[in-house]
Amino acid sequence: MRIILIGYGVVGQSLTDIFLQRKIENLRNYGFNPKVVAITDRGGAAINIKGLDLKRIQSIKKREGTVAADSVFGHRQMSGQDIIQSIEAEIMIEATSTNITTGEPGISNIKTAFNTGKHVVTTNKGPLALSFPTLIELAEHNKVLLRFSGTVGGGTPILEFAKKCLEGDRIKEIHGILNGTTNYILTEMAEKKVTFEKALESAQKLGYAETNPAMDIDGLDSAAKVVIIGNWIMNKKFTLKDVDIIGIRDITLNALEIASKKGKRIKLIGSIDGKPTVAPKEIERNDPLCVNGVLNAVTFVSEYAGRETIIGRGAGGIETASAVLRDLLDIKHHLANKILS
Amino acid sequence: MRIILIGYGVVGQSLTDIFLQRKIENLRNYGFNPKVVAITDRGGAAINIKGLDLKRIQSIKKREGTVAADSVFGHRQMSGQDIIQSIEAEIMIEATSTNITTGEPGISNIKTAFNTGKHVVTTNKGPLALSFPTLIELAEHNKVLLRFSGTVGGGTPILEFAKKCLEGDRIKEIHGILNGTTNYILTEMAEKKVTFEKALESAQKLGYAETNPAMDIDGLDSAAKVVIIGNWIMNKKFTLKDVDIIGIRDITLNALEIASKKGKRIKLIGSIDGKPTVAPKEIERNDPLCVNGVLNAVTFVSEYAGRETIIGRGAGGIETASAVLRDLLDIKHHLANKILS
Repeated sequence: MRIILIGYGVVGQSLTDIFLQRKIENLRNYGFNPKVVAITDRGGAAINIKGLDLKRIQSIKKREGTVAADSVFGHRQMSGQDIIQSIEAEIMIEATSTNITTGEPGISNIKTAFNTGKHVVTTNKGPLALSFPTLIELAEHNKVLLRFSGTVGGGTPILEFAKKCLEGDRIKEIHGILNGTTNYILTEMAEKKVTFEKALESAQKLGYAETNPAMDIDGLDSAAKVVIIGNWIMNKKFTLKDVDIIGIRDITLNALEIASKKGKRIKLIGSIDGKPTVAPKEIERNDPLCVNGVLNAVTFVSEYAGRETIIGRGAGGIETASAVLRDLLDIKHHLANKILS
Repeated sequence: MRIILIGYGVVGQSLTDIFLQRKIENLRNYGFNPKVVAITDRGGAAINIKGLDLKRIQSIKKREGTVAADSVFGHRQMSGQDIIQSIEAEIMIEATSTNITTGEPGISNIKTAFNTGKHVVTTNKGPLALSFPTLIELAEHNKVLLRFSGTVGGGTPILEFAKKCLEGDRIKEIHGILNGTTNYILTEMAEKKVTFEKALESAQKLGYAETNPAMDIDGLDSAAKVVIIGNWIMNKKFTLKDVDIIGIRDITLNALEIASKKGKRIKLIGSIDGKPTVAPKEIERNDPLCVNGVLNAVTFVSEYAGRETIIGRGAGGIETASAVLRDLLDIKHHLANKILS
C-alpha cells in the first residue's frame, strides 16, 4: 500500500514512529505493508517511489527542519499539490494544519487526491467542517474512500464507536465535550477558583492552548467536530455555518459556583439533537459525560441500547496517529472486500 | 436468515419486540430479513419452518405462560435439544438462564448447534465462563461463528468496542465495573450511609438483585465477564477457575468512609492485567471508571490510543436484545464477505 503523507508535524512524525515500531511485528498480522513514497512539509518534499527510509527521513527532519533537506530524495520546490498530482499511490494522508476559515490547503489536497484516484485519510478538521457534504459526494463520485477518525477525539475512536458498534440501532441524540483545552480551563476555574484569564494562561503554559486560543475557546473547534459527527453518524447534511456557537469567554466564577451548589458543573457541550449547537451547559456531576481536565467525552442516546458514553484524551500526536493507523487498516479491509462506502 | 430462539424470557421477548418494530423499516436497509422458525421455553416449543408469526407467539406467551400452548404450532414435549437437532436454521440464539456451576443447558445447546452447522449468538454467560477456549475451538472446527455481545455490558458494546475500534493497537490492560447490582449496592452504601444488608435489600426491592444474590455479590458474575473479555479481546486462554475472586460482602461503611476522605470510592473491579482478578478496589472519584448506580464502565489501556473508557447500563431486556441484533448483523456481514472468524 503506497502512501503519500502531506504535512509532517507532530501527527505525521508520530505516524512514522508507529510504522517503524510496528513494521516487523503486528502490522504484518493484518497483511498491511505501508510504503511511504512521499512526505511533504513547509520546506518541500522527500520522494522515493520504492518507499522512503523512514528512519533517515525522521533524522533529517529533526536535524534540518524539513524533509526536503535530504540530499538524495529531497525536493525543495515541490508542493503537496505537485506531489499528489504526480506521484502514484493508493492513499493520501492529509495532516496539514487546520484552517477553519478557508479549509486550505486541505480542501485542495483532498480534491486533487480524489481526482487522481487516491483514498484519503485526514486529520485536518478544516476541510470537513466547511465542506463535509461536498467532499463525501466527491469521494463517492470518484469511487474512493474518505476517512477521518483522528479529527474527533484524537485517539479515542468516537466516530468508529458509533459507526461500528451501534449498528442496527438508531442514534437519536449526541452530546459531547469535544475540546480538551476548554475542558481544562473550565476544570481549573471550578476546582482552583481561578478566573478565566488565569486558567487560559495556565493552559497556554502547559501547551494545551495556542497563542491565539480563539478556535478553542470560542467553540469553533468543537463546532467543527459537531459537523463531522452529525454528517457521518447521523446522516445530517450541514456545515460549520449551520451550527449555533457560544464559547466560554463569558463564563464567570460565580456561574460555576452556582452550578456547583446544585451538584452540577458547567461544560462546553456540542450537541446534535435537532439543531446542532455548541454552548456552555450545566450538567450533573455524576453524569458520565462530566469528565475533567483535558478529557473528551461523548454520550450517544440510541433507541435500544440506551445511553452510552465514551471517554478518552481528545488530542496528542501518537494518539491521533493511532487513529490514522486504524483508518488505514479500515481502508485495507474495504479494498479486500471490495466495499466502497 | 432462519433463526431458532432457545429461551424466551425477558431478552428473548425483547428481541421479538425489536424484530416486530423494525421488520418493515430499517432492518431491510441491512438486507437482513430474520425468520424465526422455532422458539422454546420451559413449557416446550413453537415451530413453523415458514417463520413464526411473532405477534401471535407473544400474545400466547403472555396469556398462557408458554409458547407451546399455541394450538397449531405448539409442541409441549419438545426440548431445546430436540429443536436444535431437528430444525434447519442458519442461527441458534441461546437465551436460557446462566448456570455458573454446570453451564447447562447452554453448553449442550451450543455444542449441538455447532455440530449441526449453525452459527450461535448467546446471551448466556455460563457456557463461556466455564468453557470459552473449548467452545471457540469447536466453532472454528465446525466453521461456524460464535457471538456473545450481550454477555458483557448488556446493550453497551464493550466487546465490539475493543475488537472493532482499537484495531492495530495493542490493549495492555482492562479494568471494569462489570456488574450493575454490586455497583448499585456500593453506591447506596457510600451515598446514603446504609449498611451492606440494607443496600442489598433495596437492590432486591428494585429488582436489581436476585433472591439469591450470591452470583452478583460474591463476584462470580463479574468474573464470568472477565473470562469473556480476557479470552476474546486479549487472546488469553483461561476459564472461571483461573480468576482470583473477592466479592463485596465484607465491605464496611467504615472502609467506604476512609476511601471517601481520600477522594476515592470503593468499587468492585474486574481486571485483566497479568493475572485475571475480581476484587473491591479504591479508585479516584474523578476517574472516568468511577460511575455510580447500576452503570457499568470499562477502561481499556492501549499502547497508542491511551486510556479509554466506555460507560453504559449493563443490563436490561431491550438493551441486551439490541446486542443480539448487532451480533446477527455481524454474522450476516461475515457470511456476505465469507470471512469466518
